[in-house]
Amino acid sequence: MQYLKPAIFTFIVLSYSAVIQAQSLFPQITAVPFSGVTITDAFWKPRIEKVALVTITVCVDQTEVKTPRLRNFEKVARKKGEQHEGIFFDDSDVFKALEAIAYSLTNHPDASLEKRADEWIDKIAAAQLPDGYLNTYYTLTDLNLRWTDMSMHEDYNGGHLIEAAVAYYQSTGKRKLLDVAIRFANYFDSVFGPNKRHWVTGHEELELALVKLYHVTNDVKYLQLSHWLLEERGHGYAKGYTWTDWKDTAYAQDKTTVKDTREITGHAVRAMYLYTGVADVASATNDTAYMTAMKSVWEDVVYRNMYITGGIGSSGSNEGFSVDYDLPNDHAYCETCASVGMVFWNQRMNLLTGDGKYIDVLERSLYNGALDGLSLSGDHFFYGNTLASTGNNERREWFGTACCPSNIARLIASLGNYIYTSSANTIWVNLYVGSKTNVAVNNTNIAIEQQTNYPWDGDISLLINPDKKTTCALMLRIPGWAQNQPVPGSTYQYLTNGNTNFTITVNNVPASYTLQNGYAVINREWKKGDVVQLHLPMEVKRIIAINDVKDDRNRTALERGPLVYCIEHADNGGKAMNLILPDEAVLTSSYNSALLNGVVTIQTTATILLPTANGDGIESIKKTITAIPYYAWANRGKGQMQVWLPRKATYVTVETK
Amino acid sequence: MQYLKPAIFTFIVLSYSAVIQAQSLFPQITAVPFSGVTITDAFWKPRIEKVALVTITVCVDQTEVKTPRLRNFEKVARKKGEQHEGIFFDDSDVFKALEAIAYSLTNHPDASLEKRADEWIDKIAAAQLPDGYLNTYYTLTDLNLRWTDMSMHEDYNGGHLIEAAVAYYQSTGKRKLLDVAIRFANYFDSVFGPNKRHWVTGHEELELALVKLYHVTNDVKYLQLSHWLLEERGHGYAKGYTWTDWKDTAYAQDKTTVKDTREITGHAVRAMYLYTGVADVASATNDTAYMTAMKSVWEDVVYRNMYITGGIGSSGSNEGFSVDYDLPNDHAYCETCASVGMVFWNQRMNLLTGDGKYIDVLERSLYNGALDGLSLSGDHFFYGNTLASTGNNERREWFGTACCPSNIARLIASLGNYIYTSSANTIWVNLYVGSKTNVAVNNTNIAIEQQTNYPWDGDISLLINPDKKTTCALMLRIPGWAQNQPVPGSTYQYLTNGNTNFTITVNNVPASYTLQNGYAVINREWKKGDVVQLHLPMEVKRIIAINDVKDDRNRTALERGPLVYCIEHADNGGKAMNLILPDEAVLTSSYNSALLNGVVTIQTTATILLPTANGDGIESIKKTITAIPYYAWANRGKGQMQVWLPRKATYVTVETK
Repeated sequence: MQYLKPAIFTFIVLSYSAVIQAQSLFPQITAVPFSGVTITDAFWKPRIEKVALVTITVCVDQTEVKTPRLRNFEKVARKKGEQHEGIFFDDSDVFKALEAIAYSLTNHPDASLEKRADEWIDKIAAAQLPDGYLNTYYTLTDLNLRWTDMSMHEDYNGGHLIEAAVAYYQSTGKRKLLDVAIRFANYFDSVFGPNKRHWVTGHEELELALVKLYHVTNDVKYLQLSHWLLEERGHGYAKGYTWTDWKDTAYAQDKTTVKDTREITGHAVRAMYLYTGVADVASATNDTAYMTAMKSVWEDVVYRNMYITGGIGSSGSNEGFSVDYDLPNDHAYCETCASVGMVFWNQRMNLLTGDGKYIDVLERSLYNGALDGLSLSGDHFFYGNTLASTGNNERREWFGTACCPSNIARLIASLGNYIYTSSANTIWVNLYVGSKTNVAVNNTNIAIEQQTNYPWDGDISLLINPDKKTTCALMLRIPGWAQNQPVPGSTYQYLTNGNTNFTITVNNVPASYTLQNGYAVINREWKKGDVVQLHLPMEVKRIIAINDVKDDRNRTALERGPLVYCIEHADNGGKAMNLILPDEAVLTSSYNSALLNGVVTIQTTATILLPTANGDGIESIKKTITAIPYYAWANRGKGQMQVWLPRKATYVTVETK
Repeated sequence: MQYLKPAIFTFIVLSYSAVIQAQSLFPQITAVPFSGVTITDAFWKPRIEKVALVTITVCVDQTEVKTPRLRNFEKVARKKGEQHEGIFFDDSDVFKALEAIAYSLTNHPDASLEKRADEWIDKIAAAQLPDGYLNTYYTLTDLNLRWTDMSMHEDYNGGHLIEAAVAYYQSTGKRKLLDVAIRFANYFDSVFGPNKRHWVTGHEELELALVKLYHVTNDVKYLQLSHWLLEERGHGYAKGYTWTDWKDTAYAQDKTTVKDTREITGHAVRAMYLYTGVADVASATNDTAYMTAMKSVWEDVVYRNMYITGGIGSSGSNEGFSVDYDLPNDHAYCETCASVGMVFWNQRMNLLTGDGKYIDVLERSLYNGALDGLSLSGDHFFYGNTLASTGNNERREWFGTACCPSNIARLIASLGNYIYTSSANTIWVNLYVGSKTNVAVNNTNIAIEQQTNYPWDGDISLLINPDKKTTCALMLRIPGWAQNQPVPGSTYQYLTNGNTNFTITVNNVPASYTLQNGYAVINREWKKGDVVQLHLPMEVKRIIAINDVKDDRNRTALERGPLVYCIEHADNGGKAMNLILPDEAVLTSSYNSALLNGVVTIQTTATILLPTANGDGIESIKKTITAIPYYAWANRGKGQMQVWLPRKATYVTVETK
């Protein structure tokens, strides 16, 4: 790999401005930003409100009052030799809380919260060193040691600073934090880069952040720096540095160059942030080698290493990937942040390809693996999201390593980002979320109002109101689950093929459409008052995994629409592991407004194994069981839960407690 | 605590020689050393041979060839700036292997092995620094950092050096390693002590080793140094040092002074080595405050924190103790070294008190928790010894942290240490092991030959051959399990009181005896050819735990003689978790010479839960099950095992794999 020799690198640097202005090799699809989307539905709107009123309050309180996270910045500014408290990456939680606040201020203006955020920003700015460096851990311990240990998250913290700064600038128009971020980025650029020092980010994040900074400043040097960081990987440059928390080169995706990578390895959140950054750089630079690598890695994730919940990173020991098909249910790690990362990366992959399969995976991670990370009350969090529990799991108020709470908060606060995309003459509807937006195609503004009770039913109405008549394609995503493909690829399949009769009408007349890349394409001239109605079949389905997934053998999971279901103790006599669900049992569903803030539950009849009166044997009895959406479990105390239900017993373990 | 003020300390130092020559406050009981005991029986003799021929070969091969443990010493001697390999405590494995070799050479002379040991000793001696310091890790990394981190095992390594040196000197008469150990001890003494530097041993071991050095050299300064090390604990002196692997002060028994300690805490092996050292110092110094502390700690271990196998340290996270009655079976840590430590400590407690209850516990740890650490083949090892397995546990060839293999090797090679003790006019028989020895009482040599097929049956013959007629007490331990006390104290009890009819005859006539401290005392004039026959009742018994031990609720364990039994997959249709053993099921036993090198198995009829043909339900059937001695499990491949068997089911978990 000769890439980093100066002569060649110069060529690449020089060619940048040409590349980014050339005809893109990828479809030019743009996401409608959440600031242009008003969410109105009964599922997401209350959650976004809950994040604004409860979750962000928790994050602010933990960051500012209950833990020393913000106080470290004050200590730097005071210059009194005070000690750093907490963990070396705690600065990032301050920035991520600010980013969530920024998004929430757009959805839910709050002058008092904005004032508090401004005060935080003053404190952050006061902790920045004259050269632009900003990191309370090293500034309060030993500045001589900065940038000596690649795993100490100086880059990661810096990336979250930049993301927060861009978000706050876009939300409020205030530049102060953006200027801090720019000074940090310029400082980093002055130390690292071609003919300067090598650097392999220990926890990827800065890459995607620098692309955001490039887009908001239009300064190509941030894109170049991000690209350079990607190209630094896989050459062994980390060897010259200390790496406190690296387990091996695969752990931080430093085993191969990005372009040569074909398999997912290591820490799941690091991997997701890396590939999000890779997609961002590939999009801006037309890099097809990155695309080849990412498609292979994506297949490795989705075909062999993803849970049915969209959760990834099955192993707690490296917070990441182990070996193919190793998907244990009872100690699934599935960090909330990794599912959030799956949303980020799959959105980018969809933008780069226009392929709906990426949104299928995004939707799966969003409604299941990620949403499970937040309690219905908005103030308790899962760090890991297991798929089976003997009763020891419960959401917690906060964590020592507190990456997940602000991550799920910033995702939900910016949910509008993931619903609509557009290109010159096409509009994509990716997620079915009741909402209003405006999209410009063919130089025409089209107001769109989406009405739906999704995910509880499959009826979606789209009111299309162009300023003037215009012909363009409206692309409605037809989820894989509505076409008997629970996940694109082969890891999971439906046990019985169900109804695939989705229907589309325009103005109550069956619409003419073609199917393309997971979308129904309706190409027509649109006029004010057009109404598109999509019906997605919403019956309950049984999923099975391929035989390679040993932990799911002889088991089935229940799904309805985008939601994965589970059996929880509270609905089933205090237990959840003592049942066999025969394949022939009829599955019905009904909406229960009083349960778990309103959910559709699934009912069926299972074989329940119960001890005889004196405990000397076991009886099999038939009994109705109730399944609830996976995201809603663990809101009624600790107890058993499982997603993958036995289709048949091969063995039983006698319990005595 | 004023203890360490110089004036007071001086008083203690001055008073040493007076104390150690004064009338002891404790019974003056001495163990007959293993070098004076020839083991002849069918149970232990083949194991000692296996250790000599196989286990020690494995230890030697791993230490010298397959791992860099010995090479680190060569590197120090070469002085070529080579890097240390392995872990900072690896020196100790070299010393422990040497100690096991030393014991084995006594049992099983082997000129070639002795030559190899001599070569090792040359290499070790060549790696000692002129000042006496000996530690390959710091010598090969940065000698300036020596003694800056209390948890870096410099003291622990030194202790094992001393133990090996004493053993090798006693076995071979060769002084070279002993002189190395003395130089190390003198060096340590020159750096640490009253009016010098403080030191809290990070992993206790040096204390007990220094007492051995005192006994072999008769130099009281080593006893004083050991005593001083004990008194250093509990004052917060570790605060001034780095402690890389300390979790908290309780972890390394540094939370309270030794004398004020009333509860067991922290790392189990550290605790056992500490209290062994405390007992040794108490014995030499008549310290009753130490005795008070140890009795309380011992009760805390045995009454609330010990498994039925004699294993201790239930928690893997600290390799030690958690909270009272926290004794999970399926992830019992129970390090082999901790059971070895229980043997050491309980032997000392017995010597200090003459109380048989300590031998009851010693025997339980020896035959179950410790012996389980070694495969029947002698070349595979358990680090942890779980009491229930779903099939993921197997003994391994070696470990990165390889403390256990040489520890079980040195214990078995020196088993003779634990059989006989004596005082001026009393002989104790503590363990029933076929063996020959000579004991001097009343200035008379008494040859004793013990013949038994223990632990398979309870018939023990003792041939007593004094040189001349002499009157003394012969104390035969009557194990708690033969008197319906499985463990002294209350954690465990027999479900039904069994036969307590042990019998003793002398020359075929029922003997006159009294019961005292767990021993039958036969006080008479002994003459050549006297034959004492002891019969211990050996029926199978059910044990239950008190209700506080949640993990054993509604469960029973099977015991026969000193052996705890388990159900293993290989004897029971490939499974072991699907049974209920009703209290009324009849238990029978029989010897099977073809199984597991010959074992008594237990048969009974249990309720087995089996899936119906199509897996849609469960049937309870009655079936004969076979239990094997716990120590013998995991010698026939991986599979399920459990010690605590359900008496009744409260619940079942359906398995599908």
